[in-house]
Amino acid sequence: MFEIEFIGTGDAAGVPVWGCDCPACRRASADPARRRESACVAVHTETGVTLIDAGVGDLARRFAFGQIRRILLTHFHMDHVQGLFPLRWCERTPRIPVHRPDDPIGADDLYKHPGVLDFRPPLAPFVEHDLGDLHITPLPLRHSRPTQGYVLRHQRHRLAYLTDTAGLPETTLRHLQRHPVAALVLDCHVPPQPRPPRNHNDLTTALALWRASGAPRLWLTHVGHHLDDWLRQPGNALPEGVRVAADGLRLAGD
Amino acid sequence: MFEIEFIGTGDAAGVPVWGCDCPACRRASADPARRRESACVAVHTETGVTLIDAGVGDLARRFAFGQIRRILLTHFHMDHVQGLFPLRWCERTPRIPVHRPDDPIGADDLYKHPGVLDFRPPLAPFVEHDLGDLHITPLPLRHSRPTQGYVLRHQRHRLAYLTDTAGLPETTLRHLQRHPVAALVLDCHVPPQPRPPRNHNDLTTALALWRASGAPRLWLTHVGHHLDDWLRQPGNALPEGVRVAADGLRLAGD
Ligand SMILES: [Mn+2]
Ligand SMILES: [Mn+2]
Ligand SMILES: [Mn+2]
Ligand SMILES: [Mn+2]
Ligand SMILES: [Zn+2]
Ligand SMILES: [Zn+2]
Repeated sequence: MFEIEFIGTGDAAGVPVWGCDCPACRRASADPARRRESACVAVHTETGVTLIDAGVGDLARRFAFGQIRRILLTHFHMDHVQGLFPLRWCERTPRIPVHRPDDPIGADDLYKHPGVLDFRPPLAPFVEHDLGDLHITPLPLRHSRPTQGYVLRHQRHRLAYLTDTAGLPETTLRHLQRHPVAALVLDCHVPPQPRPPRNHNDLTTALALWRASGAPRLWLTHVGHHLDDWLRQPGNALPEGVRVAADGLRLAGD
Repeated sequence: MFEIEFIGTGDAAGVPVWGCDCPACRRASADPARRRESACVAVHTETGVTLIDAGVGDLARRFAFGQIRRILLTHFHMDHVQGLFPLRWCERTPRIPVHRPDDPIGADDLYKHPGVLDFRPPLAPFVEHDLGDLHITPLPLRHSRPTQGYVLRHQRHRLAYLTDTAGLPETTLRHLQRHPVAALVLDCHVPPQPRPPRNHNDLTTALALWRASGAPRLWLTHVGHHLDDWLRQPGNALPEGVRVAADGLRLAGD
């Protein structure tokens, strides 16, 4: 079994944005299926759940202790780690291994009071590491904090989860070209912009990276309300092979 | 109108604690009315809502933009401010005044990226400040970060909200004795302990402070699962005038 469950596919504000009256936010307020929480993915394999990021606040209700085998963090921005703060006070053992980029600061007092979270030394990038039945390769990203994406391999399945990033470092793109994945899950925060934004991808950049990577499929994530609004307008279609992730969506691995 | 709505009455872990199998946590898992989120209170007056602390993650769903007139923070521990991180990205005006203790650090990057939150210079303690139809007096507390409680006055109603604290500074207790309140809402984290805990009140301390204050009523808040478990055991009753707050409870001002 290799199943990707998108739990949060939104940006730091989520969709709807509090107080926003745009059509995408109005639609999301009316239809819970259109809502987007901040970044979180659960990877289900035979041995349990590997969380990637923890941007949602209800992880304790979603998962029993013991279900979460490990956590992979892309970076320590609050919209990716806020769900860890209440979780950490769990008094059970064993502690949960947390893999993370090389960031000496972390988020607020997480390093000082990790509780049940067992922050592990950073793993070497561009190298595959075996975590039970899941194999991960950290790939550096381009963001305002030390940030890394992950190639996930499970048997013959290979998928790359790459957010938050503005473009991709040359070395990361080259790695993807040399070690092809079936699907990219990629930061795409906003619709096409006159110039690429500094901390995230616009759609133009995301599509260019996808084409350069050679991956058959692209899933857009870290979606903000402006992109949702753009996508709902007639004529703004995505190329074949490209889809927008949604909270609650489950992909059976391929 | 002066109504106190308890939104979160739990400690940083909340009740149930993730993974905990104690009777109080099992009961809270089975009965949503027994759950406790982290610290948050809404004070409803004619002019809108004054939030005290923001420990819950769903404030954007509970309150429309424009309903929240101001936010009072007791301190910058994550269980009191975690709900502000997604809220702040609201693009509306006017910004929301946030009153807070004199803490130059804040929480994570809240001061750096305040968004819609308008952090105001700290207000002088022991002095009543007029915020529309609500009058507040900051009172210093004893905790591991700069922390203050608030006396809330609305017309003839006076209530003190005092968490997180271990005991009370002499000056704060004296202020309560000289300016009596109808009710104390007080940090009571754990059942009676052999020696008072360092950062919070046990029940013994909370009751002693209440008696010394002269307030007719006491509401216990910042409740952890051990206190809930103690309270459910036969024989462990609270004195007349003392009650435990609960998430969702509303007190009409008196
Ligand atoms: Mn992000
Ligand atoms: Mn980020
Ligand atoms: Mn607290
Ligand atoms: Mn505290
Ligand atoms: Zn919007
Ligand atoms: Zn418990």
